[in-house]
Amino acid sequence: MKRIDSVKNPQVKLWKKLHTKKERDNQGLFLVEGFHLVEEALNQREMIKYLILADNVDIPSHWNVDTVEMIVVTPAVIKAIADTETPQGIAAVCYQNQSSSVLQTARRLVLLDAVQDPGNVGTIIRTAEAAGIDAVIIGAGCVDVYNSKVIRSTQGAIFNLPVIKKDLISAIKELKECGVSVYGTSLQNASVYTEVEKPEAFALIVGNEGQGVSSAVLNETDHNLYIPIFGKSESLNVAIASAILMYYLRGM
Amino acid sequence: MKRIDSVKNPQVKLWKKLHTKKERDNQGLFLVEGFHLVEEALNQREMIKYLILADNVDIPSHWNVDTVEMIVVTPAVIKAIADTETPQGIAAVCYQNQSSSVLQTARRLVLLDAVQDPGNVGTIIRTAEAAGIDAVIIGAGCVDVYNSKVIRSTQGAIFNLPVIKKDLISAIKELKECGVSVYGTSLQNASVYTEVEKPEAFALIVGNEGQGVSSAVLNETDHNLYIPIFGKSESLNVAIASAILMYYLRGM
Repeated sequence: MKRIDSVKNPQVKLWKKLHTKKERDNQGLFLVEGFHLVEEALNQREMIKYLILADNVDIPSHWNVDTVEMIVVTPAVIKAIADTETPQGIAAVCYQNQSSSVLQTARRLVLLDAVQDPGNVGTIIRTAEAAGIDAVIIGAGCVDVYNSKVIRSTQGAIFNLPVIKKDLISAIKELKECGVSVYGTSLQNASVYTEVEKPEAFALIVGNEGQGVSSAVLNETDHNLYIPIFGKSESLNVAIASAILMYYLRGM
Repeated sequence: MKRIDSVKNPQVKLWKKLHTKKERDNQGLFLVEGFHLVEEALNQREMIKYLILADNVDIPSHWNVDTVEMIVVTPAVIKAIADTETPQGIAAVCYQNQSSSVLQTARRLVLLDAVQDPGNVGTIIRTAEAAGIDAVIIGAGCVDVYNSKVIRSTQGAIFNLPVIKKDLISAIKELKECGVSVYGTSLQNASVYTEVEKPEAFALIVGNEGQGVSSAVLNETDHNLYIPIFGKSESLNVAIASAILMYYLRGM
């Protein structure tokens, strides 16, 4: 088993760099911390490059880590790479999901257009997984999905459904060719969501917290939906709106 | 117009104390900061005790503040009472809503049992207002609804519907006497939410992030509902679950 004791080890420096989007994209990797997220990652062990374990921490006896490469480090190394105040002594370096082949088979999708708040993106991924959505597509202008705040907000759901970065216009084109109905969300030229037939296959697009879905994307949709507001509020939070629409469109 | 220049003025000290729940409850008041929240507060001006305005800030010309008491202060005073990094120079001291008479007339309510995250409570209030809910009842064990993070998360909706602190058991009793159907949320002994008839009048109870609704409260409900999980997640975020159920139960 490999062991790293020094925070100055070049490998540790590479891990620390995974806190920036640029380096995550360069390396094609991301980092998750803590028992809960690492346990979820083990559900998709082909995404795990290796586990990093502090030498004062034990792996829970019920975990099966037989085929997983493991690197033992000092608590100081864990502290150096963690972005939480009190790291739990365990982390995983994971491969980013870069295959968009799921677009050919997915029947229920959520597409995000420039959603910028990490908590919103993470909560949408968590809700999508719970709602049995097949894939989440992350369009341009969204916060990076491998940002640690996004991953924490997913509560690990990011390991349980494909989450793909892809240009939305080309994703929509591909989905339409596969017979998926594409629903935008908009306050203009839109139907109340309960007035549409529940589709057999759908892609739901939600947009930026302030601007909504861009007009370039709305131009490509089959239908646009809105959720009526009965009070004085101007809008619903985007994660809330997504949840209402996902659960409605999927049906029971 | 009253003017306060010194951060040592006893009045300023009282305002600063409004950052603690204990003093908010002692004074029966709470503080909101910034143009957006103060503008929302003006929708319910009977809730405003007075506006606090820095002497380098102008009130927007379209605001009607004729009948509102105003206190002009130095920017240093605003900074002393604000809990944001860059205060906007305007705040309002407001009365807490202490009348529960709305229970006699409300036909759609949301009840919170020990919901502890400020963002969750604020988002539930915001969504409830948008969904046309008549009142939100805040039971024991919830984060204080006049906490500044809660108020910011409501985006001002707290001024647009009654939000009342009240013991849930006695609220449920009162609501049942008024013919309101009371729905708990639970994973045990519960029906899929889409299988219940949409009620004419309902109270929806959602619970603590980890524990859900307490058994003492569930014992008092008419029915319990759950939202199916189609993925591997254990649960939905409580604000997400509330939104799906509120919009479903209210119907279109």
